[in-house]
Amino acid sequence: MIPVKGYAAPKANIPLAPFKFDRREVGPHDIQIDIKYCGVCHSDIHQVRDEWGGSIFPMVPGHEIVGTITKVGSGVTKFKVGETAGIGCFVDSCRHCPACLAGLEQYCEVGMVATYNGRDKEGQPTYGGYSNQIIVDEKYTLHISDKLPLSGVAPLLCAGITTYSPLMQWKVGKGHKVAVLGLGGLGHMAVKLAASLGAEVTVLSTSASKKVDAEKLGAHHFVVTSDAEQVKAVNNTFDFIINTISAQHEYNFYLQMLKLDGTMILLGVPPEAPTVAAFNLIGKRRRLAGSLIGGIKETQEMLDYCAERGITSDVEVINIDYINEAYERMIKGDVRYRFVIDMASL
Amino acid sequence: MIPVKGYAAPKANIPLAPFKFDRREVGPHDIQIDIKYCGVCHSDIHQVRDEWGGSIFPMVPGHEIVGTITKVGSGVTKFKVGETAGIGCFVDSCRHCPACLAGLEQYCEVGMVATYNGRDKEGQPTYGGYSNQIIVDEKYTLHISDKLPLSGVAPLLCAGITTYSPLMQWKVGKGHKVAVLGLGGLGHMAVKLAASLGAEVTVLSTSASKKVDAEKLGAHHFVVTSDAEQVKAVNNTFDFIINTISAQHEYNFYLQMLKLDGTMILLGVPPEAPTVAAFNLIGKRRRLAGSLIGGIKETQEMLDYCAERGITSDVEVINIDYINEAYERMIKGDVRYRFVIDMASL
Repeated sequence: MIPVKGYAAPKANIPLAPFKFDRREVGPHDIQIDIKYCGVCHSDIHQVRDEWGGSIFPMVPGHEIVGTITKVGSGVTKFKVGETAGIGCFVDSCRHCPACLAGLEQYCEVGMVATYNGRDKEGQPTYGGYSNQIIVDEKYTLHISDKLPLSGVAPLLCAGITTYSPLMQWKVGKGHKVAVLGLGGLGHMAVKLAASLGAEVTVLSTSASKKVDAEKLGAHHFVVTSDAEQVKAVNNTFDFIINTISAQHEYNFYLQMLKLDGTMILLGVPPEAPTVAAFNLIGKRRRLAGSLIGGIKETQEMLDYCAERGITSDVEVINIDYINEAYERMIKGDVRYRFVIDMASL
Repeated sequence: MIPVKGYAAPKANIPLAPFKFDRREVGPHDIQIDIKYCGVCHSDIHQVRDEWGGSIFPMVPGHEIVGTITKVGSGVTKFKVGETAGIGCFVDSCRHCPACLAGLEQYCEVGMVATYNGRDKEGQPTYGGYSNQIIVDEKYTLHISDKLPLSGVAPLLCAGITTYSPLMQWKVGKGHKVAVLGLGGLGHMAVKLAASLGAEVTVLSTSASKKVDAEKLGAHHFVVTSDAEQVKAVNNTFDFIINTISAQHEYNFYLQMLKLDGTMILLGVPPEAPTVAAFNLIGKRRRLAGSLIGGIKETQEMLDYCAERGITSDVEVINIDYINEAYERMIKGDVRYRFVIDMASL
């Protein structure tokens, strides 16, 4: 076994603290990564607090992982020692179901193996990226370009692919009016990516204070949703709304902003299921859709796309002993736009 | 003006009774139709009872109209006296907005002119097909084949196109598993049309008693939705669910029956907006969509398709003085599957 250092939540609602554990030896198809940076996703907080139920403790969170390959198994063909690699939200899947065969491992019918708070095929708990080493099968490992600052690349592994995948699936591009709802970790990536694809991007926000940032990120328009006049002006206008909000909110209010055949894509899960007025969809042939992260193939495409275009996440790099305070600030929305842990601080 | 006989609701919740009124003279682009049959749609009841608000009284309902052309205006080019013609849910629209120009008049941005309980461009109330004559612009008139029994063709003008249009939009056909939810006027047409397109059709019903009928209509499978085992067996299996239910019901229960990338298409409007659990869409990239009747071009395609394939609605032909009793039976679900008024009884 390989001894690893990390930070773990010992139980729900107990602060994270230093934690030592072991990882498996590097198998023939495995890669060992010396973790450099790990992004902090809002879902880390949900799981650490057991808000979704079934959390496994102690829990080492983290699924936005980048680092340097220090060892590869004898059967590894696509990676070499010394290269930069990334790990996203899952580290395995059944590999045989139609979803896996289609490169959509995130929708694996047996269930993907989450990077942390999951169980591997031997039934052992998985531990994530708030740690100094990780061992993963090369099939679930991503190539990372060295062109971009690694701290800003880490969040692409979750926030990046979660917003990129629906933009690809719905073929968003020039001529489309795209609204982004919620300007957080996901939302700021949605703005950057949609704008890079040539779409006309509007940020919808309750807070006028985000306007300057929205424009810096590449948004063309900004709508304060508490202003009835501004809302009226955008009703029936958007081809797509990328809805990144996980807090409680109304779907119907935003659905009316879609034009004929427009689609609102849900990326966040509010605590209580919102209502959907049928005529809001029927009257304009609108659509409400969901999307979950992305498959390995598409994640690699996204990483390559971002490397070519110089797209990274806007991050605030922190030491790992700041993680509990970082969580408190995230809950208040006080981060622009992603905390990333510098693992040298471990 | 042209004197017309019909049946009207004098006010909300007052029984329909004989009613005389005038229609406009036949203008240069108009067609006069001697109405032979008019289907009875559940929306007639909603509007007669002012359940959607804003009803205009006296109200002559009816938007599933077939009859014989008795006069055409001097500028009419596509219809001749003696031909059979049909009128559906609308008789005009702005003709200039992007939706109208795309042949999607039902989504007219100014608002389509409903066949009844609407107002024409002069602001006059429109009167529908529970009457012996109607005058409509040829642009909003459909060609009806004489191959099929006219009484069974009448409901195609609403129930037929309402189910045909989403099947076309979503390219439903061979290889697709399609569930039909609700076996009424819309549902029985959805079964016939989806089966005719080569899809594998399952009827979802709370009532086991509908199984024999479902199979006669062309369904391949039948699921009693109160049977947990039967439901479990179809979870994650359907490409599409055609949801025709207007009564209160849960969307989440049915959404879980969709496979990866599956779509539930709403055609009915429940009184209270149902909830949608975001993860039910996100976890399998499912979609919830709406669809509203169909444009004139597509309605003609549907009528031609049905004429070629011998597809009609299953109807119970009634005299017009039975209409109030028919409404009571429809509310109880006691009709297989559409009442159609024989206008000779007027």
